[in-house]
Amino acid sequence: MKTIVYIATSLDGFIARKDGNIDWMINIENPTNDDYGYAEFINTIDAIVMGRGTFEKVLTFSSWPYAKRVFVLSTTRKSVPNSLKGKVSLLSMTPREVLSFLTKDGYSSIYVDGGRTIQSFLRDDLIDELIVTKIPMLIGSGIPLFSDLAHDLSFNHIETRTYPNGLVKSHYTRNRN
Amino acid sequence: MKTIVYIATSLDGFIARKDGNIDWMINIENPTNDDYGYAEFINTIDAIVMGRGTFEKVLTFSSWPYAKRVFVLSTTRKSVPNSLKGKVSLLSMTPREVLSFLTKDGYSSIYVDGGRTIQSFLRDDLIDELIVTKIPMLIGSGIPLFSDLAHDLSFNHIETRTYPNGLVKSHYTRNRN
Repeated sequence: MKTIVYIATSLDGFIARKDGNIDWMINIENPTNDDYGYAEFINTIDAIVMGRGTFEKVLTFSSWPYAKRVFVLSTTRKSVPNSLKGKVSLLSMTPREVLSFLTKDGYSSIYVDGGRTIQSFLRDDLIDELIVTKIPMLIGSGIPLFSDLAHDLSFNHIETRTYPNGLVKSHYTRNRN
Repeated sequence: MKTIVYIATSLDGFIARKDGNIDWMINIENPTNDDYGYAEFINTIDAIVMGRGTFEKVLTFSSWPYAKRVFVLSTTRKSVPNSLKGKVSLLSMTPREVLSFLTKDGYSSIYVDGGRTIQSFLRDDLIDELIVTKIPMLIGSGIPLFSDLAHDLSFNHIETRTYPNGLVKSHYTRNRN
């Protein structure tokens, strides 16, 4: 079982403004319509785990963007919209329980998304890979990607790609040696 | 007059632990004794501006590391050690006043160092270049490089260099268009 974070942040480490707004990210020029390797990445994973906050943000999009099965962590939400039955499942579990559950279900490569969910997985040292794209902008405040940890987590740098519009995507794997 | 930040941070954006400790940064393997372009960078600047906190941290080092003139921003400190007379000057000024003063004094390329000092210059949009080296480690908490801003600051990405031990150095210039 491999867990991967794939996310974009501002230079100061925010994934969204405090109200969830990502205008500053969407407004980045992208004349070549680059997907920054997203489609290639999505092909490598077989399920997506996200928190309720991210799920409810995605529900506001004009269409459901995921072809892969999505598991939403929530202790409060009891159902998903009818249109997403079979595509989205709710789980009320700890990160460790989620991975155990998904392993038994045959999944082997999990995309972990959403600020609080990523943070809770990192706190239990359950993230194997980080793929973080830096948007060349300081926004000053917002929802941070990272948060408190019980101890340091060391990573190996695999590669960094840069894009003409200033995005810098770095790929790290957890170094547990 | 050009102002440049040249600094290293953890993946989660800290320049030191809460107590100022940078063990996690110093302990990174560096078998080729790489200076990550530091000497080359220092040759491009003609003075260093730092806060009192950073200055007093540097005073604990075994030797004074700077060949360039250092200006220390402080409203409280009244003197510098005798050994540093002629090398270090104290200034009790705002960031804008400092730059005006240094311009009149003939300086044209300033290295701005130290968390609070960098943050105060950024709040007044007085930083022209950011050169940030990412150490491949999450430390969870500490002294952040960035802080609140009155408005977004957009940057152009100039180049990113990667090092065999996992450091990733990105160079940005302020985009004021």
